[in-house]
Amino acid sequence: MKKLINKAEDVVREELEGIELAHPDLVKVSYDPAYIVRADAPIKGKVGLVSGGGSGHEPMHGGFVGKGMLDAACPGAVFTSPTPDQMLEATKAVDGGAGVLHIVKNYTGDIMNFEMAADLARGEGIEVESVVVDDDVAVKDSTWTAGRRGVGLTVLMEKIVGAAAEEGRSLKECADLARKVNGQGRSMGMALTSCTVPHVGKPSFDLPEDEMEIGIGIHGEPGRTRMKVEPADKVTEMLLTPVVEDLPFKAGDEVLLFVNSMGGTPLIELYIIYRKAVHMLKEKGIKVTRHLIGPYITSLEMAGTSITLLKLDEDLTKLWDAPVKTAGMRWGI
Amino acid sequence: MKKLINKAEDVVREELEGIELAHPDLVKVSYDPAYIVRADAPIKGKVGLVSGGGSGHEPMHGGFVGKGMLDAACPGAVFTSPTPDQMLEATKAVDGGAGVLHIVKNYTGDIMNFEMAADLARGEGIEVESVVVDDDVAVKDSTWTAGRRGVGLTVLMEKIVGAAAEEGRSLKECADLARKVNGQGRSMGMALTSCTVPHVGKPSFDLPEDEMEIGIGIHGEPGRTRMKVEPADKVTEMLLTPVVEDLPFKAGDEVLLFVNSMGGTPLIELYIIYRKAVHMLKEKGIKVTRHLIGPYITSLEMAGTSITLLKLDEDLTKLWDAPVKTAGMRWGI
Repeated sequence: MKKLINKAEDVVREELEGIELAHPDLVKVSYDPAYIVRADAPIKGKVGLVSGGGSGHEPMHGGFVGKGMLDAACPGAVFTSPTPDQMLEATKAVDGGAGVLHIVKNYTGDIMNFEMAADLARGEGIEVESVVVDDDVAVKDSTWTAGRRGVGLTVLMEKIVGAAAEEGRSLKECADLARKVNGQGRSMGMALTSCTVPHVGKPSFDLPEDEMEIGIGIHGEPGRTRMKVEPADKVTEMLLTPVVEDLPFKAGDEVLLFVNSMGGTPLIELYIIYRKAVHMLKEKGIKVTRHLIGPYITSLEMAGTSITLLKLDEDLTKLWDAPVKTAGMRWGI
Repeated sequence: MKKLINKAEDVVREELEGIELAHPDLVKVSYDPAYIVRADAPIKGKVGLVSGGGSGHEPMHGGFVGKGMLDAACPGAVFTSPTPDQMLEATKAVDGGAGVLHIVKNYTGDIMNFEMAADLARGEGIEVESVVVDDDVAVKDSTWTAGRRGVGLTVLMEKIVGAAAEEGRSLKECADLARKVNGQGRSMGMALTSCTVPHVGKPSFDLPEDEMEIGIGIHGEPGRTRMKVEPADKVTEMLLTPVVEDLPFKAGDEVLLFVNSMGGTPLIELYIIYRKAVHMLKEKGIKVTRHLIGPYITSLEMAGTSITLLKLDEDLTKLWDAPVKTAGMRWGI
């Protein structure tokens, strides 16, 4: 295992120390229990947005804490759900009296722990709503998931609902908006290589030098099929076609196209994929009006990509364009 | 070779097509000769900033074209210098009558071709100044370099001088500022893995599973030493100590600390390195007042990191903080 780390058990704590040192203008860090919270939390009268999940997907979620996006993020150990006490303390830390929305990726551990935290928070008088993201069209159930996995759409949801909370929408409005985003977005990913969880010390799975896995999960969970490596244009078709057909996206739709790196795939390749995806969508009469290209929801150093499509309307577009100031996404402020 | 590409010879062109489709608000793309230029170029009365170099270091330089940074970038083939005609046409495209500054990384091919382009542009009546970046303290000469290599400081120079040009400083002022930045910044990098140039098809060098290369160049050029992999804190010391001692940076200095990923190293590891670097600098009485953390000058999918330190003053800090709107760096607009 080749990594720029010290002890495997210190990876998340030392990363949090780095975040705390780098971004005191944006966030505060709590270590026990571990969470990252907006420097100006709680904000009176604003709905608080809390997300979280296993570490190893950086910048998600900790890099999305700040003005216009999340109020707090709870990092678990690498590829391991955070605990209810992390979520509870984060919820209390961001409660400004207007309630707290939990954005939960659909993994069994995350769902269970966020539910427990929500119950505990309600017991302390905080109004909590939860929204589950399950945008991955690759497989119906998976290693750690009943139903579809939550993947790339999470990034878009956190940005859009973050903007809505920032402009003062109510807890119900924010939760409804998040469900609308989940209803209008779909994703699928693939891997060229595996990745290595630090405390495991060996690759999560084996992938021969000439093969790729289509439909992979963000923890290396098996996908739809393993096959010989194909050219980028073919791979793009294999990801985008099931995404488009699932919703389905239709001629006349305006969409946000998100081409994500799983970590080890460089930007030069993402633009090649983006180009093919735009051409394919154009042929179907679907217009890409917004985009996101880069490593935003990663699987450590895994080489691979995922494509997310979100159907836009005037409100979603306006919220996407709204100012945001976080370590991982920043514009307009 | 596992890459999300089509034909190796089409990589740069297809990447440019993706950039053109993604960022029409920021840039225009010329294909023959190849360059990326600000959508609103030329800007009357503003000094034009042109840089370029081999592809494979994305987002540098093409991702830094836009308001507050570069006016144009010339991408060569992967790890290959662009040609004088690319540089000449880019120079003409950004000339708004106030002259053009070439920012050139110190590699023999880049130097030679930018010199030729500058001569040709002067022959067409355009005032051109050139500044060479040579911030890498690792080795005196290298595979493609007489003198020190130009590496991470290039990113900071393009941001800072870009802001100066944007606020209307003259060609001489911009060139002097770029030389000042070069005089006050130092870098050093390391690699855990090699990378594969698409048209070569095999790794640029071999690095056994338990070894790392300290002082690596951004094209995989050999560094100072090859040794067993050490913990992140030790690696940080091995990079930062020569950087600090070279200038030297001293107690009381305020600095920008740039922790860069060579491509394959994830963000979680960069924060661990950042944390150690801040602690080391604090012990020396050096204060980190600005930072940059992420993959900004990469070597395709190479795993590894580089550290750049730039001594700041009031003017450099103000220029660093100035608004910028490019694909690869964006804030305040």
